[in-house]
Amino acid sequence: MPASSATIHQHEYPNGLVLVAEEMPSVRSAAFTLLLPAGAAYEAAEELKVGGGAASMVCEWIARGAGTRDSRAMLEALDDLGVGHSESAQTVHASLAAATIGANLIPALELFADMAIRPRLDDREVEPIRALALQTLRSLDDDPASKVIYELRQRHFPSPWGRPSPGSADEVARTTPNELRTFRRAAHRPNGAILGVAGDLDWPRLRDEVGRLFGEWAAQPEPTLVERPSGPRVDHINRETQQIQIAMALPAAPVASDDYYPARAAAAILGGYSSARLFTEVREKRGLCYSVYASYEAQLGRGAMICHAGTSVERAQETLDVMLAELRRLGEKGVGAEELDTMRAGLKSSLIMAQESSMSRSSALAADWYFLGRVRPLTEIAAALDALTPEMVADYARRSLNLDDLTILTLGPNPLTVRLPG
Amino acid sequence: MPASSATIHQHEYPNGLVLVAEEMPSVRSAAFTLLLPAGAAYEAAEELKVGGGAASMVCEWIARGAGTRDSRAMLEALDDLGVGHSESAQTVHASLAAATIGANLIPALELFADMAIRPRLDDREVEPIRALALQTLRSLDDDPASKVIYELRQRHFPSPWGRPSPGSADEVARTTPNELRTFRRAAHRPNGAILGVAGDLDWPRLRDEVGRLFGEWAAQPEPTLVERPSGPRVDHINRETQQIQIAMALPAAPVASDDYYPARAAAAILGGYSSARLFTEVREKRGLCYSVYASYEAQLGRGAMICHAGTSVERAQETLDVMLAELRRLGEKGVGAEELDTMRAGLKSSLIMAQESSMSRSSALAADWYFLGRVRPLTEIAAALDALTPEMVADYARRSLNLDDLTILTLGPNPLTVRLPG
Repeated sequence: MPASSATIHQHEYPNGLVLVAEEMPSVRSAAFTLLLPAGAAYEAAEELKVGGGAASMVCEWIARGAGTRDSRAMLEALDDLGVGHSESAQTVHASLAAATIGANLIPALELFADMAIRPRLDDREVEPIRALALQTLRSLDDDPASKVIYELRQRHFPSPWGRPSPGSADEVARTTPNELRTFRRAAHRPNGAILGVAGDLDWPRLRDEVGRLFGEWAAQPEPTLVERPSGPRVDHINRETQQIQIAMALPAAPVASDDYYPARAAAAILGGYSSARLFTEVREKRGLCYSVYASYEAQLGRGAMICHAGTSVERAQETLDVMLAELRRLGEKGVGAEELDTMRAGLKSSLIMAQESSMSRSSALAADWYFLGRVRPLTEIAAALDALTPEMVADYARRSLNLDDLTILTLGPNPLTVRLPG
Repeated sequence: MPASSATIHQHEYPNGLVLVAEEMPSVRSAAFTLLLPAGAAYEAAEELKVGGGAASMVCEWIARGAGTRDSRAMLEALDDLGVGHSESAQTVHASLAAATIGANLIPALELFADMAIRPRLDDREVEPIRALALQTLRSLDDDPASKVIYELRQRHFPSPWGRPSPGSADEVARTTPNELRTFRRAAHRPNGAILGVAGDLDWPRLRDEVGRLFGEWAAQPEPTLVERPSGPRVDHINRETQQIQIAMALPAAPVASDDYYPARAAAAILGGYSSARLFTEVREKRGLCYSVYASYEAQLGRGAMICHAGTSVERAQETLDVMLAELRRLGEKGVGAEELDTMRAGLKSSLIMAQESSMSRSSALAADWYFLGRVRPLTEIAAALDALTPEMVADYARRSLNLDDLTILTLGPNPLTVRLPG
C-alpha cells in the first residue's frame, strides 16, 4: 500500500532551497513541483512595483531558453524526455511542475535548474510573450466563470494577496524587458523556494543531484510587501453575458490552525460534493443553475471559503438568496452527524486517490511544507478527520461564519439585490 | 511495476454486457467506466427520432433516483461511499464513471446497476433537468473554444456521428418525459455495453457480483442508424467574441487499422506536444495565439485529426494560413527521425502515467474493448511505437492528408479567407 510503505524525506540546502521527497515504490513515473515565492503578489513589492501580469510573463520567459539551450532547444529537450510540464504564476507562488518516467527525473530537473538559475531572457521573446499575455486576458473575457473568481479574490483578500496573475491589459502592454528582469532577479530565489518530488526516485541520489544542480543559485533579500485593505465588499461587474455569475468569499481558518479541519468540513458540507447543501438546495430542489460549489482556499496564515454559482438572469436573484440563506443556516444551526460522515468519506477517498498520483503528490508535499514546515502523513490526516465531531464543526461555524465579513461579486447584464438574511 | 504485474480479465454475460477488468496490486482505489451505446447519435435512430439533448438529459435523469432510492438518497449513498462520479453522454456513448476506495467498489457498482436497470424516472425531475440542459447550452455560448469543436464535428462526421451531446435549445425545450423514457428503454441496454474496472479488485468476486447485479438487465434490439452526408465543408459562425476560433478536421485512420500508429504519430507531430510543429510555427515563432493543438479522435471504423486555434481578430488570417501550410507540409514532406523520437518519448511517458491511475485505466480498458474487441497490453503499444519509422508516417501522411477532405469552421466577428496552399 503506497500510504504505509511510502517514505518521506526532507533536506534544506545552504541557499535556503527546501527539498521534500516521497518514494512511491509502486509507480514508474516521477513528478516534481518547484514553488517559487514569485507570484503576482510580489509584483507589488516596494522595491519592485512592476506591472500586473509580470509574474506570469516571467514564467513564460524563463522557459524560452536557459543554460546552453535556446527556446526551441529547451522545448525539444523537454519533449525528448517525455516531460509533461507547466510553468505558471498564481497569486503567491510561481509553480514549475513536471512529470515523466522515473529514469528521466534527474535530466528533467537539470532543465528546470537552468530555467530557475540561468534563463536566457532574450529580448526578442518579450513581444510574443506580451501578445500571449494579452490573448490570455481576452480569453478570460470569454470565460466569465473564471473571471468572476479572479475579481472576487482581488476584492476579498487584503492587497496584494488578491492580485490576479493574468494582470491587466494596459499594464501588460507597458511592461519593459528590464522590469521583467528586475522582477525575476528579486523573486526567483532559492530562499523561500520549495521543491516537492514524488514517485520512482532514489533519495540519496536525488538529494545529491539537487544540491549539485541548484547549489549555486544565490539567495536574495526578501522583497517587502505592504498589506493594504481591499474591497469593495459588495460589487457588480456589468457584462453582456448569457449567464449571471455569483461569487462570494468569507474568511476561514488557516491550514496551520486547530480550526483547519472544521473549516475544511464546513466548506465541504456547504458545497464540496454532490449531495452537499448548496447542490441540494440550489440545483437539486430548485434547478436554479448548472454549476454551484463551495471550496476552501488557503494562503499562509489565512483561509477563505469561496462560493460560486453560474445561473440565468431570471434565476439569479433566487440563487443568490438561497446561497446566503445556506451560509446563515450553517453558522446558526451547525451540521448533522450524517453529513459529517459523508464529508469524511469523500475527503478520505480523494486523499487516497491523490496519494496514488506522483504529480498530485509532489504538489501536496510542496504545499504542506509551505503551510506547515513539515509533511502530514496520510495517517495523520485520516486520524484528524476521524476525530471531527458535529459539535466541533458547529462551534467553528458559529464563531467564524459571520456574514458581515462576506465579499460578494456578481458579473452579468444586471446587478442583484444583496439581502443578508436576518 | 504495474505494467508487468497487472492482470487483465474479461467476461461476457448472457445479456451481452462485457466486463473487462485489470487488477492493479499497488493501488487502494478502484474505478469503473460503464459505456452504454446511448450517446447523442442514437437520438437520430429511425425508431426513436427524439430531440437533440435527450441522451444527456436521460443520463441526468437515471442518476436522480433508482431502485429503492429517490434522487437525494442516491446522491447521499454515492457520497457516503466516497464515490467521485460523472454521468454524461458524448456522441457515441453514454458514460457512467466512478472511482472510490477498493473496499467500496461492489457497493458502488450496486448503485450504478440500479441507475442502468431500475431508474425511477420521476416526471417531476424533468423540468429541473431541462432547466439545467438549457443552462449548459447557455454556458457553451460563453465558451467559444468548446462551441467551435462541437460545431466542427457536426459538419465533419457523417450524420448522426457528429451530433453535439448538449443538443439545441429549441429541441431541449420541447422534449417530453415519454420521449426520454422511450430513448432510455431502447439505448440503455446491456448488449453493446462495456464495463471497464481497474484498481484494487478481486477478479472472481467482481465477475460474480457483476453477474448478480447486471444479470437481469434485458437485451434490446439495436436501433437503426442511417448515415447521411453532413457539411458544409467550409463555414463561419458569426459571433461578437473577443477571439476568433479556428477549427479543422481531416479524416484519419481508425483504431483497428494498420495505419493507427502512423495516424497518431502524424497528429502528435503536428500539434500534440509543446515543441510540435503547430506550436512552434504558430505560437513560438509568430506569437499568433495562446492555444493551438492537433489531436487524434476515434470513432468505430473512423478517425479524425482535429486542429484548433484561438487567436485575435488581427492575427486570425495569418494563423489560419500557417495551419493550412503545416498540414500541406506534413502531407508532402513527411516527418524527421528526431521528431518521431520526441513523439515516441511523449506518448510512452503519458501511457505509463495513465497506467498508474485506476480511473484512466478503467476508461482505457472499456475503450480498447470497444475499438478492438480486446485490451492492448502496454508492452504491445510500446512495441508498436518502437517499430514506427519516419517512412511509415510519411507514407501514411502522403496517402491520407488530403486537404480536399478538410472541414474548416471559424467562429468570431468576421469570416476568414480559406486559401488552400497549392
